[in-house]
Amino acid sequence: MSGMTIDLRRFSINTATLGYQAPLSDTIEAVARAGFGGISPWRREVENENAPGLARQIRAAGLQVSGYCRSTCFPGASKREWLANVEDNKMALRFAAELGTKCFVLVVGALPPGSRSLPDARQQVADGIAALLADAQALGVSLAIEPLHPMYAADRACVNTIEQALELCALLDPHATGRLGVAIDVYHTWWDPKVHDMMARTASEGRLLAFHVNDWLVPTADILMDRGLPGEGVIDLGALTNSALDAGYDGLFELEVFSSRIWRLSVSEILELSSRACLSITRPKEGRLNSAT
Amino acid sequence: MSGMTIDLRRFSINTATLGYQAPLSDTIEAVARAGFGGISPWRREVENENAPGLARQIRAAGLQVSGYCRSTCFPGASKREWLANVEDNKMALRFAAELGTKCFVLVVGALPPGSRSLPDARQQVADGIAALLADAQALGVSLAIEPLHPMYAADRACVNTIEQALELCALLDPHATGRLGVAIDVYHTWWDPKVHDMMARTASEGRLLAFHVNDWLVPTADILMDRGLPGEGVIDLGALTNSALDAGYDGLFELEVFSSRIWRLSVSEILELSSRACLSITRPKEGRLNSAT
Repeated sequence: MSGMTIDLRRFSINTATLGYQAPLSDTIEAVARAGFGGISPWRREVENENAPGLARQIRAAGLQVSGYCRSTCFPGASKREWLANVEDNKMALRFAAELGTKCFVLVVGALPPGSRSLPDARQQVADGIAALLADAQALGVSLAIEPLHPMYAADRACVNTIEQALELCALLDPHATGRLGVAIDVYHTWWDPKVHDMMARTASEGRLLAFHVNDWLVPTADILMDRGLPGEGVIDLGALTNSALDAGYDGLFELEVFSSRIWRLSVSEILELSSRACLSITRPKEGRLNSAT
Repeated sequence: MSGMTIDLRRFSINTATLGYQAPLSDTIEAVARAGFGGISPWRREVENENAPGLARQIRAAGLQVSGYCRSTCFPGASKREWLANVEDNKMALRFAAELGTKCFVLVVGALPPGSRSLPDARQQVADGIAALLADAQALGVSLAIEPLHPMYAADRACVNTIEQALELCALLDPHATGRLGVAIDVYHTWWDPKVHDMMARTASEGRLLAFHVNDWLVPTADILMDRGLPGEGVIDLGALTNSALDAGYDGLFELEVFSSRIWRLSVSEILELSSRACLSITRPKEGRLNSAT
C-alpha cells in the first residue's frame, strides 16, 4: 500500500512499553538516541527521584513530555477513601507540573470492592475530577481523561467511550479552559463505530490532549498484558492517525504497549522494534481512506 | 437487600450453559424438570437431528424456545465467501422455523483474515442481514442482532453496542415489521453508559427479542470462557432486568454462560446452580433503583 509515513520525531515512547527496566534517566537518553520526539514517564519513575532534574534532562535531550501516567483511581468504598485518592492525585499533579508534561493521564477507576454500581462509580469519578480542576488550573497542568476499553469497566475505568469522556468534559469544564480533555488510545477505542467522528469532535472542541498507539492482537491471550506493536494486529492505524491529523491534532503519537512478550526483550531491542513499528504506520494518501470508511 | 425475585418459569436455559454434554432430547427433559420455562438450543444439536420431533418434544415439555443459536458470521474474504455465509444462514433459518423459536440469534462476525477494515466488515454484515430478511418474513422467524462486547470486535462481531444494532434495524427494517430486532446480553452491554436508555428504546421500538443473563467476573481469566453465573460477578442484574421489565419486555431471561469452570460439572449440578443463580436476581422494589442510577 502506498501512503505517507509519519516522522519518527512525531512519536513519543510511553515508558511502560519498555517494561521499566532502567532508571528514567537512562531511558530518557535511550529514547532520544533512538530518534523519538517525546517520552511519557510513569509516577513510579519520578516520585522518589529528583523531578526537576529529570525535567531538565528531558528538555536537554530534546524530548517533549507527551503525558504523565497516571492518576490513582478515584472511586473508593467510602468517602474517606475517595478523598485520599483525590489527595494522592493532587500530589501527582505537582510532579506533573515539575515535569512540564502536556497532560496528566486520568485512568479514572471503576467499581470499589463489593460494589455493583457503575452509576455510583461514575459519580465518584466526576466528583473526583471536579475536585482536581482548581489545582490543575493553578499548576498549569491539563487533565486527560482516558476512556479505557469496556473490558476494563469493572476494575480499571468506568469511562469507556470517547463520547462519555466528552460528556464529562462538557459537564465539568463547560468553557473549555484547556485544562480538561481526552487521551485517546486506539487499543481502547478502535472498535467504536463512532471513533472517527468522536476523534474529530474531541479535536474540534480543543480537547484532544494525547493519542496513544499500539495494536489489538488476534487472538488476545491476556486481557491486560497482550497488546501488540503497531502493525502486529488488526487496528487500522493509518486511518486513525489520519483522522487525528486531519482534525488538526498537533501533539505526539505515544507508543504505549503493555506486553509480557515484548518486555522479555532489552530496552534497545524494544526501541528498535518500536521505531520500525511506528514508521510502518501508513496514512492513506491525500486523505483517501479505504472506500468503505 | 430486599426486592422482588423473578419466577423461574420466566428463565430459559441456553444449552451452551450446560456444555453440550447430552443430546438435546435429554437436555429438554432436564431443563423442564428443573422448572425453567424455556430453552435455547444450538444448531449443532439440531441440524443433524429430527428438528420437527425436537420441536414437538419441547412443546410437550411445556418449554418455549427463547432463541436459536446462532448465525454463521457474515463477512468473508471474498464475495463468494459472503454468499456462502448468507446461504448457510438461510438454511439455519429453516431449522429455526421448524423449532418455532422466538428468534434466530445473529452473531454477525467481524474482520475476515487479513482485513483491518471494520467499515468493510460492517457493510458486509448489513448486506448479509438484508439478504436474509425476505426468508425471515416468509418463514415467520425473527432475526435478533446480538451486539457483542467490544473485546470481540476483531474476531466475532463488529456490532458492539445496542445503539449500533438499533441503527442497523432502522436502516434495514424501517417499518419495524417485527422480523428484525436485538438480542441484549448483559455480558456484552453492562458497561455501556447508555445501556438502560438503549434497552428502553429497543423495547419501545418493539425490537427487544431476547435478553441474556450471566455475569462478569473480576478478574476475567479468559476472554471467551470465563463468564459467571448471575451473582458471581459485578453486573447489577437487578437493575438491568428491572429496566427490561419496566420497558415492557415480556420474553424470557435466557441464561447463557460460557465457562470452562462450570462445564466441569454435570448437567444436573449446573441446572441446580443455575436455578439458584436466577432466583438470586433481585429487582429493586417499586422500581426504586439505587439513587445514582
